[in-house]
Amino acid sequence: MERVAIIGASMTQFGQREEWIRELLSEAGQACLEDAGVAPDAIEHLYVSNMASGEFEGQTGIPNALAHDLSAIPAYTARIDQTSSSGGAGVYAAWQSVASGASEMTMLVGGEKMTHRSTAEATDVIASLTHPVEYKHGVTLPSFAGLTARAYLETYDAPRESLGKVAVKNHRNGVDNPHAQFQKEVDLDTVLESPVVADPLRLYDFCPITDGSAALLFCPESVAREYADEYAVVSGIGGATDTHVVHERADPTTMGGVVNSSEQAYEMADMRPEDVDVAELHDMFTILEFLQSEDLGFFEKGEGWKAVEEGVTDRDGELPINTSGGLKSKGHPLGASGVAQVYEIYKQVVGEAGPRQVKAEAALACNVGGFGNCVTTTILEGQQ
Amino acid sequence: MERVAIIGASMTQFGQREEWIRELLSEAGQACLEDAGVAPDAIEHLYVSNMASGEFEGQTGIPNALAHDLSAIPAYTARIDQTSSSGGAGVYAAWQSVASGASEMTMLVGGEKMTHRSTAEATDVIASLTHPVEYKHGVTLPSFAGLTARAYLETYDAPRESLGKVAVKNHRNGVDNPHAQFQKEVDLDTVLESPVVADPLRLYDFCPITDGSAALLFCPESVAREYADEYAVVSGIGGATDTHVVHERADPTTMGGVVNSSEQAYEMADMRPEDVDVAELHDMFTILEFLQSEDLGFFEKGEGWKAVEEGVTDRDGELPINTSGGLKSKGHPLGASGVAQVYEIYKQVVGEAGPRQVKAEAALACNVGGFGNCVTTTILEGQQ
Repeated sequence: MERVAIIGASMTQFGQREEWIRELLSEAGQACLEDAGVAPDAIEHLYVSNMASGEFEGQTGIPNALAHDLSAIPAYTARIDQTSSSGGAGVYAAWQSVASGASEMTMLVGGEKMTHRSTAEATDVIASLTHPVEYKHGVTLPSFAGLTARAYLETYDAPRESLGKVAVKNHRNGVDNPHAQFQKEVDLDTVLESPVVADPLRLYDFCPITDGSAALLFCPESVAREYADEYAVVSGIGGATDTHVVHERADPTTMGGVVNSSEQAYEMADMRPEDVDVAELHDMFTILEFLQSEDLGFFEKGEGWKAVEEGVTDRDGELPINTSGGLKSKGHPLGASGVAQVYEIYKQVVGEAGPRQVKAEAALACNVGGFGNCVTTTILEGQQ
Repeated sequence: MERVAIIGASMTQFGQREEWIRELLSEAGQACLEDAGVAPDAIEHLYVSNMASGEFEGQTGIPNALAHDLSAIPAYTARIDQTSSSGGAGVYAAWQSVASGASEMTMLVGGEKMTHRSTAEATDVIASLTHPVEYKHGVTLPSFAGLTARAYLETYDAPRESLGKVAVKNHRNGVDNPHAQFQKEVDLDTVLESPVVADPLRLYDFCPITDGSAALLFCPESVAREYADEYAVVSGIGGATDTHVVHERADPTTMGGVVNSSEQAYEMADMRPEDVDVAELHDMFTILEFLQSEDLGFFEKGEGWKAVEEGVTDRDGELPINTSGGLKSKGHPLGASGVAQVYEIYKQVVGEAGPRQVKAEAALACNVGGFGNCVTTTILEGQQ
């Protein structure tokens, strides 16, 4: 079977935007077509990753609106929702559409418009993804994060400061990302002294509420060569769930969906974790970067915090993590985030990451839905 | 590439149900596993077709809930939304997951829970899919249907009674469908004298608001042979959009998405319209059965109404349409409808349609999203 390539990528400015979801999707889609030099009538399938345009904005049918706005009709279109990992699920759907032979040119546009709602309202919409047995007791995703952070720190004898250093590192990376919501450094004291949200986690351990959109263009490798000298190949991809009831997990410091989805991706790519040169992880909460860096096999269980302390995951370290600034500084418009992760690793493997560029032949993105309820992992390799 | 088979199908009772969306999905999924003799841990991908569980019920993350309820974790899961054709989009997604090699056993469960909301509320949620330029003028899908019906009757000199006869036929078929919301005949006078909703269409020209769920199991044909002596093969499938702004269409009596998606399906199946033995069409409004029966190539443009008048589309006619009772009598739980259409044609081609059985080697289902904004067409052939 022919390999699936990515030949174009774009993302809008992330942050507090005046535009509505339709306009954000259209902006990213248009920019992606221009990046790839592809005409809109070449699009055969058009997928939109989005969790909740209906709940946030009272607007549904956004894939059709986007097909209209991009002049892509009669391209087939649908919306893919996998809560906070809708973007990764969209990447998987777009890959499947090409790998199955259904489409020779698939555009994926992920986006979410959230900042017009209060933080409490947005958090409640997101919390509606949890199991009722937990939701009715008032559990939200931030509270899961606090409980998990406490368990991790105690189990592995990790210092509280190590979590803060994830925020410091990712903010530092975000300075060089012109699309990031926060393009400023923060120091460790600021993180550690910020207001408590879900003990032991504080304000700076959390990603912000964000508006934004990102897009990718997928096609068979033979078609990619017609459009581009440099492109990326999806060499591995996989997806998996973990328990829907978070408290049913045997080990609260392991995310089974990360383990299972990455095993699928590594097997397909015929790679091992040590073959990955750079990674984008789903740092919706700082603690999640530790969990994923271990569950992906980069570090031993309980050792992820040491890698951050020792600078291994810095941009100039052995395995740079979240060169984009991560969700932490870039922002987290739910349906866009997984797409923007792949935007970053695409830019890295084709050598277009500018001041964020690291040496990268193979790169990995891990997108986490819910509190690890469903995860997709994608591995790209550059072809030049 | 190996062909994709369907080895099991189920649907719940459609109608006004006490259960919530989670319970409806679980009921159909469980029944489908039993129908196919497949264990839940064999499921590799699990897709949920649903338009608006968040808007209708304040519940998101339903694919993860279903993976939990079916004991299918760690199967990968995601939600597919294409408004009223979410079910057809789910069929396409499930097909792609198997055809791409990503999954060797994919379950699709479509469902919607709507009747706890008022008809006005439900209609407004659905109308939020329309283009704002039309929505802000108060256009809803029923009003589009009225305008289209008037254009059709005038353009093709068709009698108003012919529309009523679609309702009469589909109600007659529904009598033999134990899952249908309405299992009772209606006579032509009742249809023609029912209250006006969107002139010239009256109450009995419309499908009801419905709760329900339906499920299908997809796998490669080689795997199908391990589970079943009789199964169906997806011999053709396609999807396409038409203008998002309905009034921009050159001919209001043609749905471009039906034309384009069926051309893809016929080409893939190496079939022509006359090779189809039985079809399920999206009769959300009676007028839509005429449009689709023509745009699918079954009848010349403007002649679909004559086929109904002459009994060609009756169960014992030359080309039975909506043997299930159609959306008209079966009901229309948005995300379930496209799945339930394929349930019916699956039962027909494997010879399990009971009192509704017709002679069928090849069968077609056409699922229409919005007001033709996006359409999927699926062709099945039975393998015995």
